[in-house]
Amino acid sequence: MSTPVYDPQPLAKGTLRVTPIGGLGEVGRNMTTYEFDGKILIVDCGVLFPEEHQPGVDLILPDISPVRDRLDDVVGVVLTHGHEDHIGAVPYLLRVREDIPIIGSGLTLALTQAKLKEHRLRPVSQKVTEGERITVGPFDLEFIAVNHSIPDALAVAIRTPAGLVLHTGDYKMDQLPLDGRITDLRAFARLGEEGVDLFLPDSTNADVPGFTPTERAIGPVIEQVMHQTPGRVVVASFSSHVHRVQQVLDAAAANGRRVALLGRSMVRNMTIAADLGYLNVPNGVLIDYKKARDIPDNEIVYMSTGSQGEPMAVLSRMANLEHEIEPRPGDTVILASSLIPGNENAVYRVIDGLTKLGANVVHKANARVHVSGHAAAGELLYCYNILTPKNVLPVHGEYRHLMANAKLAQDTGIPAENTIIGQNGTVVDLRDGVATVAGQLDLGFVYVDGSSVGAITDADLKDRRVLGEEGFVSVIVVVDAQTGRIISGPEIQARGVAEDDAVFDKVKPKIAAALEEAAQNGVRDNHALSQTVRRTIGRWVGNSLRRRPMIVPVVIEA
Amino acid sequence: MSTPVYDPQPLAKGTLRVTPIGGLGEVGRNMTTYEFDGKILIVDCGVLFPEEHQPGVDLILPDISPVRDRLDDVVGVVLTHGHEDHIGAVPYLLRVREDIPIIGSGLTLALTQAKLKEHRLRPVSQKVTEGERITVGPFDLEFIAVNHSIPDALAVAIRTPAGLVLHTGDYKMDQLPLDGRITDLRAFARLGEEGVDLFLPDSTNADVPGFTPTERAIGPVIEQVMHQTPGRVVVASFSSHVHRVQQVLDAAAANGRRVALLGRSMVRNMTIAADLGYLNVPNGVLIDYKKARDIPDNEIVYMSTGSQGEPMAVLSRMANLEHEIEPRPGDTVILASSLIPGNENAVYRVIDGLTKLGANVVHKANARVHVSGHAAAGELLYCYNILTPKNVLPVHGEYRHLMANAKLAQDTGIPAENTIIGQNGTVVDLRDGVATVAGQLDLGFVYVDGSSVGAITDADLKDRRVLGEEGFVSVIVVVDAQTGRIISGPEIQARGVAEDDAVFDKVKPKIAAALEEAAQNGVRDNHALSQTVRRTIGRWVGNSLRRRPMIVPVVIEA
Repeated sequence: MSTPVYDPQPLAKGTLRVTPIGGLGEVGRNMTTYEFDGKILIVDCGVLFPEEHQPGVDLILPDISPVRDRLDDVVGVVLTHGHEDHIGAVPYLLRVREDIPIIGSGLTLALTQAKLKEHRLRPVSQKVTEGERITVGPFDLEFIAVNHSIPDALAVAIRTPAGLVLHTGDYKMDQLPLDGRITDLRAFARLGEEGVDLFLPDSTNADVPGFTPTERAIGPVIEQVMHQTPGRVVVASFSSHVHRVQQVLDAAAANGRRVALLGRSMVRNMTIAADLGYLNVPNGVLIDYKKARDIPDNEIVYMSTGSQGEPMAVLSRMANLEHEIEPRPGDTVILASSLIPGNENAVYRVIDGLTKLGANVVHKANARVHVSGHAAAGELLYCYNILTPKNVLPVHGEYRHLMANAKLAQDTGIPAENTIIGQNGTVVDLRDGVATVAGQLDLGFVYVDGSSVGAITDADLKDRRVLGEEGFVSVIVVVDAQTGRIISGPEIQARGVAEDDAVFDKVKPKIAAALEEAAQNGVRDNHALSQTVRRTIGRWVGNSLRRRPMIVPVVIEA
Repeated sequence: MSTPVYDPQPLAKGTLRVTPIGGLGEVGRNMTTYEFDGKILIVDCGVLFPEEHQPGVDLILPDISPVRDRLDDVVGVVLTHGHEDHIGAVPYLLRVREDIPIIGSGLTLALTQAKLKEHRLRPVSQKVTEGERITVGPFDLEFIAVNHSIPDALAVAIRTPAGLVLHTGDYKMDQLPLDGRITDLRAFARLGEEGVDLFLPDSTNADVPGFTPTERAIGPVIEQVMHQTPGRVVVASFSSHVHRVQQVLDAAAANGRRVALLGRSMVRNMTIAADLGYLNVPNGVLIDYKKARDIPDNEIVYMSTGSQGEPMAVLSRMANLEHEIEPRPGDTVILASSLIPGNENAVYRVIDGLTKLGANVVHKANARVHVSGHAAAGELLYCYNILTPKNVLPVHGEYRHLMANAKLAQDTGIPAENTIIGQNGTVVDLRDGVATVAGQLDLGFVYVDGSSVGAITDADLKDRRVLGEEGFVSVIVVVDAQTGRIISGPEIQARGVAEDDAVFDKVKPKIAAALEEAAQNGVRDNHALSQTVRRTIGRWVGNSLRRRPMIVPVVIEA
């Protein structure tokens, strides 16, 4: 079901070429390139977190091969907001060319700079705000306020002689946001009047009917839970969710509780947010973690990371009694967060562990302690109607999300032929209001694993999956280089296969016999001898253990 | 946070000893033993399906060590219904003693016998029906109809001189079940009047507020989806859900469609259900799969397995174009099933694959095509009030479910000290209406893996997790037994670590040097030399690759 790969024609003068590099067919590693007149603008450069079929992988980066040889043509990277799936790959891009200008809002830049500092990179940054219009190479950029689950998110309107493109980044349309900064529908209306030639909207919640409830609905719930808790309160959420933390601080203040931040990223991000004025800390509410233990139980709130059941994060360690704070009866733990698919078992293990310790656990399934950061179908319809874009390229989502978003566009009257369901590497050319699919690049996954970037391949991951499911059996034999006869061995090393290595004693004579026979038949080739070993042990393991571990034969000539 | 393990006192005469062996703190491998007067009755004997931290494991069995040496005292196994988590471990029990009598309803026995036949076991069975009362050893058993997501489920009331116990098995209280066979609240009322000393209720949905909707609500939705589909319809569900399949057959008949069953377990179970009269096949609706391809698209329904995204099941293969039936625009696929936690990514991959092929996918998240088989909180409250049990031991659920169920019991007035939150191996003694925790046995996981039962240990699984996350590096060196000096090697075999084995060329001289030094220092001990190799390569991999693969040193003396 793979789409045919074909290179586009060279880019014609006066045409804008739009290529989603990451974020289509997946939720993460968002990145899109815009090319005009020989210059390239990048919008977002994020990471994707691995799934269970990508074991051991730390991060997945967008495959930047289409621009790798042309980094000198890149005039800038616009970052729409400060989430990892939009900024996380910037350090890897800047390792290749450090002085690519980074363009974004105050908070977005601050979070990106903190990340770059850890990678010892010093970026060239340009801060922008909503309403601002700047020129970057041949691109005329206008920034528009949008509301999301992190403050200071921006959509970007990209004007070139080829037309007007609106790239939303992640957004929703909360009409009562905590900071009063709504998605700027007046600006959308103005762009609509001017004529939007191509619209790239967030698709994450396009298959969710209706409207995302307001973030403001959560505050009273958290406040009431705090009020009813006789002991300590622990709230876990995403470490960049400034408004969620804001509501926890406000609820704590209203309840006469103080708040200690827990978790490296939580402390770092909230310090940045408070310094820049995005987080409004009520007087005296924040307290250092080390001093929190001296405060009575009913006067403290711990704001922590680990809402996705990450094994090393604060919340998991609390549930396993591996953290200084040991939950007990009377305490309440609030998971004020979404449950990202794939994390269910880990999160439920944490909830069960906390429950077993006697804590009351409040989470999405039993109270309104989370709302999404993405526009649901009803909100997207508003946008299509106010923008009336000529062409739509839904981005940011799995295939079903992109399809649902295209369907919404069509429901508002945009012709089906003008809604493009793309994938990573789909090349879309825009000219005179017409958007055409001009090519399909072959893009892959770039795995970060330990210190390596791109060294681990899908073949390695397949090996890991086999090893993880079935273990391995290694057979080592030392043979005489002249005669081919066994000098030592066969020695068998197995891991993850059977508890008792003695089980393999039965097959050793069979391997020895097979090698003996090969030697008598004049086989000396190491590869052929290895294959003999592999066949003999593989067949025996399959038949007698009904297992298919990885077989690693090692024939050493001495 | 582990509970102290301690053996109970020998069982006093006139006391009933109740021990949950499996199903507490987990959803699966349900099994409880009842001992009285030297004889043991087992209720249910199911399997648990492994989670992602138990890689490669096929099934998990209850740890029957408490009864393994006393199987001659076992007077029977009551099976409450025919789901795998209640009957799946029967073959493994009967392998140890084949003639333990199996007691259950008609459908439950038929499904169990089909399974035992595959294991070449011929059970001694005793069929019972609701309302029936039989004596098995010292146990007086009364069977009570309960409604669940499989027909013919039974609760069992167990009477001994020690008191009256009600063990529900899985159940809900659908007041309009498809087969008219409701959970027998009149019988519950009668038992309540007599006095229930100990109640063991299903806890699966105890934390779900309200009431489980009726199964009957699904039929019209499926019928309408079929009606609106211009092409083929594929419905995926659990292969034992007779009533779900019944509704698909009825909807197909009403739409002038015929139904082909797909998947080995679906065909087997529905054949049994139809033969025994539990499935009512409308005249001519069922059609052989091979003939289905000759039927126009808008006249066919495929009823298949694979609703949990199982990679080898029909639905996944369809989504990957690895099945003869290739979904296309105009087709609709209905996932008429729950989404078991941990399967989300697999199921969404299937949904995405089907969507990409152009099929319309209808599932729980966008239509009422599934209801649970378990009683929600509202239903459980009815049961507590009609039974007014003296003591409660919630079973069948994760810890949070057991806690929620105990809370419901307390809400209806049962004292907290009479609600026992147990775990597998908690020994509860009942006498004169008093239930006491008498001991805590140390029970483990018994893994079925290939042909082995209980051979794979938690240490093997830990090895597999390391191998799966990080791969392994094996270093083979042949040394002279006399001098300790290297004859051949070091040879390095790595899998899942780095794409290019040449990366290890740098460390080979270091290993050789370390061994040379050891040899010069007179080290000859194989273990010590292996440790030298392990340290050298381990440190290098950690520092230069930032990875922690499994290190397997092999020093061969020749």
